[in-house]
Amino acid sequence: MPYGYAGRILHVNLTEGSLSIEEPDERFYRKYMGGSALAMHYILQEVPAGADPLGPENLLVVSVGVLTGAPISGQSRVMINAKSPLTGGIGDSQGGGFWPAELKRAGFDAIVIRGQSPKPVYLWLNDGKAELRDAAHLWGLITGDAERAIREELGDAKVEVLQIGPGGEKLVRYAAVMNMSNRAAGRTGMGAVMGSKRLKAIVVRGSGRPEIHDREALSKLARWGVEHVDDIHGTAVHGTAFGVPGQQSSGGLPTRNWTSGVFEDFENLSGETMSATVLKERDTCYACAVRCKRVVEIDEARWKVDPLYGGPEYETVATLGSYCGIGDLSAVCKGNELCNMYGIDTISAGATVAFAMDCYEHGILTDADTDGLELRFGNAEAMVKLMEMIGKREGLGDLLAEGSARVAEKLGRGADKLVVAVKKQELPAHMPEVKRSLATMYAVNPFGADHMSFEHDPAYSPTASPQGLERLAALDLVDPVDVLTLDRNKVRFGYYTQCVYSALDTVGTCQFVWGPAWQLYGMNQLVDCMRAVTGWDVSLFEIMKVGERRLHMLRAFNTREGLTRKDDWLPARCFEPKQGGASDGYAIGVDELNQSLDWYYQMAGLDDQGRSTVGKLVELGLDWVADKL
Amino acid sequence: MPYGYAGRILHVNLTEGSLSIEEPDERFYRKYMGGSALAMHYILQEVPAGADPLGPENLLVVSVGVLTGAPISGQSRVMINAKSPLTGGIGDSQGGGFWPAELKRAGFDAIVIRGQSPKPVYLWLNDGKAELRDAAHLWGLITGDAERAIREELGDAKVEVLQIGPGGEKLVRYAAVMNMSNRAAGRTGMGAVMGSKRLKAIVVRGSGRPEIHDREALSKLARWGVEHVDDIHGTAVHGTAFGVPGQQSSGGLPTRNWTSGVFEDFENLSGETMSATVLKERDTCYACAVRCKRVVEIDEARWKVDPLYGGPEYETVATLGSYCGIGDLSAVCKGNELCNMYGIDTISAGATVAFAMDCYEHGILTDADTDGLELRFGNAEAMVKLMEMIGKREGLGDLLAEGSARVAEKLGRGADKLVVAVKKQELPAHMPEVKRSLATMYAVNPFGADHMSFEHDPAYSPTASPQGLERLAALDLVDPVDVLTLDRNKVRFGYYTQCVYSALDTVGTCQFVWGPAWQLYGMNQLVDCMRAVTGWDVSLFEIMKVGERRLHMLRAFNTREGLTRKDDWLPARCFEPKQGGASDGYAIGVDELNQSLDWYYQMAGLDDQGRSTVGKLVELGLDWVADKL
Repeated sequence: MPYGYAGRILHVNLTEGSLSIEEPDERFYRKYMGGSALAMHYILQEVPAGADPLGPENLLVVSVGVLTGAPISGQSRVMINAKSPLTGGIGDSQGGGFWPAELKRAGFDAIVIRGQSPKPVYLWLNDGKAELRDAAHLWGLITGDAERAIREELGDAKVEVLQIGPGGEKLVRYAAVMNMSNRAAGRTGMGAVMGSKRLKAIVVRGSGRPEIHDREALSKLARWGVEHVDDIHGTAVHGTAFGVPGQQSSGGLPTRNWTSGVFEDFENLSGETMSATVLKERDTCYACAVRCKRVVEIDEARWKVDPLYGGPEYETVATLGSYCGIGDLSAVCKGNELCNMYGIDTISAGATVAFAMDCYEHGILTDADTDGLELRFGNAEAMVKLMEMIGKREGLGDLLAEGSARVAEKLGRGADKLVVAVKKQELPAHMPEVKRSLATMYAVNPFGADHMSFEHDPAYSPTASPQGLERLAALDLVDPVDVLTLDRNKVRFGYYTQCVYSALDTVGTCQFVWGPAWQLYGMNQLVDCMRAVTGWDVSLFEIMKVGERRLHMLRAFNTREGLTRKDDWLPARCFEPKQGGASDGYAIGVDELNQSLDWYYQMAGLDDQGRSTVGKLVELGLDWVADKL
Repeated sequence: MPYGYAGRILHVNLTEGSLSIEEPDERFYRKYMGGSALAMHYILQEVPAGADPLGPENLLVVSVGVLTGAPISGQSRVMINAKSPLTGGIGDSQGGGFWPAELKRAGFDAIVIRGQSPKPVYLWLNDGKAELRDAAHLWGLITGDAERAIREELGDAKVEVLQIGPGGEKLVRYAAVMNMSNRAAGRTGMGAVMGSKRLKAIVVRGSGRPEIHDREALSKLARWGVEHVDDIHGTAVHGTAFGVPGQQSSGGLPTRNWTSGVFEDFENLSGETMSATVLKERDTCYACAVRCKRVVEIDEARWKVDPLYGGPEYETVATLGSYCGIGDLSAVCKGNELCNMYGIDTISAGATVAFAMDCYEHGILTDADTDGLELRFGNAEAMVKLMEMIGKREGLGDLLAEGSARVAEKLGRGADKLVVAVKKQELPAHMPEVKRSLATMYAVNPFGADHMSFEHDPAYSPTASPQGLERLAALDLVDPVDVLTLDRNKVRFGYYTQCVYSALDTVGTCQFVWGPAWQLYGMNQLVDCMRAVTGWDVSLFEIMKVGERRLHMLRAFNTREGLTRKDDWLPARCFEPKQGGASDGYAIGVDELNQSLDWYYQMAGLDDQGRSTVGKLVELGLDWVADKL
């Protein structure tokens, strides 16, 4: 069997406590390739419309892809899908680490989890065998403690643990699924779904050394990557937060709940500052030469941070930092540690606190609501405190655990105007007001606002290099794209690169290492990699179609849940002029966004309400999905 | 400059007798790649809606592609586009030979011809220089004589001559553009457009040996082809007519104006019979190892055939043979010779004669109309006689030179029910009743029924080989396709392979040598070839998009001419049950075809009237086309 797929999918019924293994044929893997597309194959067939995302009818699929675990940079990502308790539509989240590669070594491509266990359990996969084990003693433990306990119990320090923290157990609507206690599949609340099923962890260990079709070709490609890793110097050396100064100078650093795109203390939050101050070391995922992950350590009484929990990404320094008007990097690192301990998404957590601060500043939340916590912008103690309270669902944290959109619904009094979310998911730290294509792409992404689902506006990416332009040409993007307008060609750029990123989340490939333009490897090299690993004579056309297929599968789920064009829309704040800096006065126009949706829908094969046409589904080999709508 | 494009496009204004040279940038070639797509860039911008196809407003573009002339099999094709005098929509035709490679050696990628010359001229291109020369002495000559005269006049036996015969001069609506006196760009009447402009010939000679980016890689690919040419044994050894017995056994050999799919004398018409009887030698196009071209010689008084005019293809043995109920291979060869001498399309010529025979059998045409010619099915003498009469527009030939649809309009009396054409272009010799996907693909093809614009039903192609299946998988076609029904997946198969073939007609690649499944080289090898030749890091995605781009450019032209869904339809006879053989009783259903159009339109990004949506045009980088509709 080619390495590309382990050939085994584990099916778990937690209600019954039963396990079974499916061995799909090669065509199945060629068509879905892994990740979200593979997951949706099961979810669309089994989850009934209107299912409670936190009930036994929801399906949770944890998967890797055909390249996962290949010994080359950026090929160890896990994808998690289920109906989202945050958005009410489809959920989708990814994380890195060593767990994904280890799952493949243990002999599995995916785990399809049904039902709901009567008591806490964990799943133990070891060299092709699978077992459900009691997790009563683990329930309630923070991630680091649970991981330690599991390793001790199994007598193997090298088992990899994918788990939820107390946030997931308590059904925080944006609870993450963690691994290594510092890698988060953070978005859309997949941790809450796992918690609702009372599944604490999936623990894997394998001794398999799967066959590579052409090991020499793969080694050559891997060596090329090592030699060229300096091309993405910024991310590699200073982590994703290297981008803070660039965001600031373009006016694109979301500040004080999205009222401004510039933050006076931005320098405190940059990757370079982190490198120069709290950084203990650079960490990596399986076989990756980029080493973008941060490990910070702080040994002050006020913000003591355990390096076990890693360090903040760009999104986190923004959401816990500038969103909240906080320029204290140590506080951000502490907040990040708590999010990872409790297993909650730093983006939604930080953005929800920023929203709460905005409500407080407007008098919509009062001291009565906050139990005396003075929830003003810039209050670092309050932010840190709330991270723990959300993770434990204590006091105000219990309310904020619902996410900003649901909090606003409960509060009323105009709080909805302060929510910065799409499909109830809080916006990540890239501003559509500045990178204009993000307006459309945030709006249409099936699982709510997401920054890792398309290539950002070319003016703000290093795509102007000859290498970047050549790579874009291979994606048929040869025409120059205008900056700062949301014109037709910008929407095209968004749609094509959305298909690219969707393919990456299907194949299960890190988007900082492989991608359409500035990444270490380009998409034609992904074709080379897939050929070397699987032996398939695969093409970029095929990979792009797999990406498009996943997008339509995700959207089909939403259609069945009743989501329509009105849900493909931006929050009010994006239409309000930003204050100060390079983006002073910038705002999205209602007509501009509406027009771009029309173009996007036509490009993507959707009707004017954003539903996939039958012909488009058939074109993508999804005739069976058409029959389900 | 990379070899992929010569970098020079010749612009000719025949009204003024002026010439100029344009040198587009590399992005232009990357986006359009040559052929039809490049041609449509000019035609859509310049030809006004409603232009007389035979008037000075029509533009005639003769082009090659980025790979043309590369020393490897199947890379010497010329593409010709203009508004069609046969269909009233866009015209599009291709031919092989040595002329295309020679044009590139002469330093040109395309010739854009405007206006109308007051007197016959020919164009002489020699190593980057271009000249218009008097052609009064050539006007009226059959192709072989004109070619000889031009070579003598220029004192160079190696000039290559693309020309029209008397058929083009006389504006036969399906006049061909010939080269070598035996290679025809036959369809849609491009020869008539050339004739209307009084341009007798385009003569080329070049000493350039253009640079190849990676000559070693190209040589390796060329050698691979030579080693594997036996894989397409049938076409190589017996020419395209090798397929006659297969068509007969599936009931797909159109007989007696499409009333039956079996012909009792089919064995007389097969490639094997040709090889065993009249074949003089196998001929080839530039650098091609396949050598599919036939050269026949007959030295009987009755049907004396000069080998200069080559030999019949499968289409020709069917249209001059079984269409007319004629099983005499020598008569077919004679008819073929006359078509090539006079420069008329064998398919439309043969099919129009078969239609006339049908009219005669039905009493719609009488002896008074035929000047006593007994126009019954099987009358070989009548068929041969009519080929010359059409070429000269003499007697009944003058009427039949209008094509079957216009003849029926003139005759009335129910003759329209006997017309077997789409968009007034006669059907080629593959039956949608048997290969069901052809129903949709004939109907939707922008320049009328055409058999070289998509892959035929997989059941009737050797795609079931592991190699064919792997190649289809690279086109994202991994699901099995049902035979004999026009289901959704069949339409998908048609649409995807239509994009492939459209790309081949853009790049300018022979479809018997390069293609999606059974051909000598697969599409991933086309990517390799283009990389080796041009140095671009091109992808199959990009090539597929170029194919899709061309299709929408062709269709946009038709939309502007008022063609709509009603023009995407099959002739009445396809809905009538066939008689006898394996296809006895087979017919296309009206609902079946209608439903397939709905699916096709949605897949292709068309509205329900078959017009490209704005979003789809933008998606293909054709925002400027959207602005013209």
